Amino acid sequence: PVAPPSPLPENSWSVPVAPGGPFARVYLPQNAPVGSDTVYGDSQWLQMNRNARHNAAVRVPKDAPAWFREGVFWRYAEARAWPLERRHPFGARTLGETEAGAVQTQFYGNALGVSVVGGVVYAESDDMFAYALNARTGQLIWRTSPVGNNLMGNPLVTRNTVYLAAGGVGFNFANVVAYAKKGSAIRGMDVSYNGIYALDRRTGRLLWHKGSVGEAMPTPVIHGRFLYFATGSGTVHALDRHTGQSVWKVRLGGNDNMSSPAYDKGRLYLAMASPPRLYCLDARTGKTLWHGTIPGAANTGMGDVSPAVGSGVVVMDTVTRPKRIHGRPTLEAVVRAFDARTGKTLWTVSTGRGPKPPAFKGGVPLIHGDVVYVGSPVTGRYVALDLRTGHRRWAWHKVAATRSAPTYYEGSLYIAGGDSLYRLDPATGRETGSFRIGGRMGIVSPTIVGGTAYVANSYDWIVAVPLSALSLSKKKAS
Amino acid sequence: PVAPPSPLPENSWSVPVAPGGPFARVYLPQNAPVGSDTVYGDSQWLQMNRNARHNAAVRVPKDAPAWFREGVFWRYAEARAWPLERRHPFGARTLGETEAGAVQTQFYGNALGVSVVGGVVYAESDDMFAYALNARTGQLIWRTSPVGNNLMGNPLVTRNTVYLAAGGVGFNFANVVAYAKKGSAIRGMDVSYNGIYALDRRTGRLLWHKGSVGEAMPTPVIHGRFLYFATGSGTVHALDRHTGQSVWKVRLGGNDNMSSPAYDKGRLYLAMASPPRLYCLDARTGKTLWHGTIPGAANTGMGDVSPAVGSGVVVMDTVTRPKRIHGRPTLEAVVRAFDARTGKTLWTVSTGRGPKPPAFKGGVPLIHGDVVYVGSPVTGRYVALDLRTGHRRWAWHKVAATRSAPTYYEGSLYIAGGDSLYRLDPATGRETGSFRIGGRMGIVSPTIVGGTAYVANSYDWIVAVPLSALSLSKKKAS
Repeated sequence: PVAPPSPLPENSWSVPVAPGGPFARVYLPQNAPVGSDTVYGDSQWLQMNRNARHNAAVRVPKDAPAWFREGVFWRYAEARAWPLERRHPFGARTLGETEAGAVQTQFYGNALGVSVVGGVVYAESDDMFAYALNARTGQLIWRTSPVGNNLMGNPLVTRNTVYLAAGGVGFNFANVVAYAKKGSAIRGMDVSYNGIYALDRRTGRLLWHKGSVGEAMPTPVIHGRFLYFATGSGTVHALDRHTGQSVWKVRLGGNDNMSSPAYDKGRLYLAMASPPRLYCLDARTGKTLWHGTIPGAANTGMGDVSPAVGSGVVVMDTVTRPKRIHGRPTLEAVVRAFDARTGKTLWTVSTGRGPKPPAFKGGVPLIHGDVVYVGSPVTGRYVALDLRTGHRRWAWHKVAATRSAPTYYEGSLYIAGGDSLYRLDPATGRETGSFRIGGRMGIVSPTIVGGTAYVANSYDWIVAVPLSALSLSKKKAS
Repeated sequence: PVAPPSPLPENSWSVPVAPGGPFARVYLPQNAPVGSDTVYGDSQWLQMNRNARHNAAVRVPKDAPAWFREGVFWRYAEARAWPLERRHPFGARTLGETEAGAVQTQFYGNALGVSVVGGVVYAESDDMFAYALNARTGQLIWRTSPVGNNLMGNPLVTRNTVYLAAGGVGFNFANVVAYAKKGSAIRGMDVSYNGIYALDRRTGRLLWHKGSVGEAMPTPVIHGRFLYFATGSGTVHALDRHTGQSVWKVRLGGNDNMSSPAYDKGRLYLAMASPPRLYCLDARTGKTLWHGTIPGAANTGMGDVSPAVGSGVVVMDTVTRPKRIHGRPTLEAVVRAFDARTGKTLWTVSTGRGPKPPAFKGGVPLIHGDVVYVGSPVTGRYVALDLRTGHRRWAWHKVAATRSAPTYYEGSLYIAGGDSLYRLDPATGRETGSFRIGGRMGIVSPTIVGGTAYVANSYDWIVAVPLSALSLSKKKAS
């Protein structure tokens, strides 16, 4: 009889990734940063956009090497890259421009921005891969796909570890039926595998993974020994970030879609949809200290937006009050500020009504100084609001998709929207320069380190743009 | 200022796959079959399990090379392979054994079996890759991932082209809400990209792709110049299989999950769920000639099962009449036969009630001679029923998951179930041999060519097993 194939190597591999296959880790140590490059960027990245204010910017010392300040220019095509000069998102012929753009972001491209730590750009993409690139040269150091699911977050980075959060937008049929019966369901349940995957920072090797029933689209947050993450089944988990062991788990109910928890002074601030609620939890125990909402909050809005926290104020926004105008569905975007300690409402401001957008239903706020900068997905407008009073200072109306938090750096405000990177004067909202990257942006805040803005976009590219490349078009300059 | 990166090559690439990236096509011509090996297997593969009766078996000529008859033994680890000796599916700790098994099949493994044409095994996997392997050596000829979505079908193969169908089980939130409001929704809408992808058979290069709004999980069917496929939005499409151009499109309503259309004498037979209906369409126009149902059809059952057609009879089955027994949800599996020409019901047979299974809610029937062989996902039993009367000849109860069609080959019946391949006497249902492959099976029929059974399983392996390796364990032999 025919000889059977040789037996498998002992305890072969720990997650379903065939050794040497297309999802296997690739590690190119020769591309790692050396010398002074290894201090470029932050020394760690512990929550979405680097801090609870959501300002993804890192200054560089005066005596740093020249390129730190002059900036670098490169483009890296991730696994599902779509050529940047293509006017239309992939699949527009079948799904239409707007929906195809949302699908490309959620399944092929980068939903959020990158982290820059120790001379390396870390990105996680909905193409199911995580990447480490040399921040100066744009060369690949490692890539890996330990889980066959979308990676929607902004990678967290500590001294030795990179943390990914796996989860996508889909619901399985059992939860479609559950939603029809009870008005609530678990997003991501039985839709591939969800949860946290911890990688060795230098090599990308998998250290541990912790599964969750619901999707883990939101970016986790780290404080000290603990990693906290929220899921599509309305639960919040605290893990020991060295082992992945569970420390506590609470069920708040509803779904967290993309609302990444912010950590501030021993507390976690995050929001859920269905029912729409903003929560303040004690980070030690998970106990709810207070919760609030925004009147008329609709659809997935509250579960999409990551609250920003600064100067004792929590800022949240969502779409509200669905209404059909001339037969077309519209929503009103509303921003509300809460006292971070008590949850008392400080002010509530409507930023206007507009057509119902697909997918993400809000704008991620940035707090800088005593101002909140936030975009509206329904009016295509960014506004600057006084942090104390909500009084509007200015509005800037330029880009169709205005969902991501701006980034403040050395006296300018940078916004990634549509196919370009824009620079505004934070005091007036006047545009002072732009650079056309091509493709489209998801909910991507530019990550700025010294003279370079790093942008990960929906066409699955990571692009490094020197701030000096942003210029005013002739028309605008006059 | 810093020099911008070089421009992209002209009309760079046609689908979002970065050249040289992990999803890029790999082609190893040196592994292709040569000489007489190139006639091993069928010359084409035009519908699921090769014919409307669902018998995935190909005889070999008496004077064929020895290995055609003796069989071969090899194992190929696909991209998301999980070691075959692992007792539990991946993720069982988080999702439990049964649900983790279904998730692994739907997102990492092979849902259906392989096609064997011209000495090559063609497989498409939910790991998002399609593979061409040398049928004798098991070596990779090409692999490609033109679309970032699950590939649930059984690849179709013509002289020059391989056809893949892309789609998965997920629903987006807008359709969760639609189902709650109207009781119907489009499965797969805005959940990555769905549709048909045509590849060059020799090299795996992409020739054309045709997008669909709903998922295209079911295997298409080819007749002459046309390729027909059904989707999760209840539509059926006819395309010119050379160009992908649309010829006709009809909306039947409901969702087709895994019900692959069967072509027989100018007609297409397929079923939809929500509402549960079996359809007979005129293949030239898409016009409905008749439709029928199974009383009490429940859940996704009717949209899961591919009807078998043979000797003028259409056999369909589904789960029906949900009932809670001791607080646990149960369903009753019912098989019904219809006159293929008129749609008249010939007979209806219940194969018993049992616990509600996750995912796939039926058994794919096989028609051979004047007998129907079909498994039940609720009782774990295969039954043999008279094609004319529905009278039961025997029942075989062995394997937990009994969803796939058996394969009849040279006087024996082969069934892939659980972790093994079984051989039964078709007259009595008595087991005459088995071979433990390891892992678990999805809805996989063994594809038998001469002395070898090719099985693609849920642990993302393709395994070739010589039929001679199936033996009776001591206990069973006595």
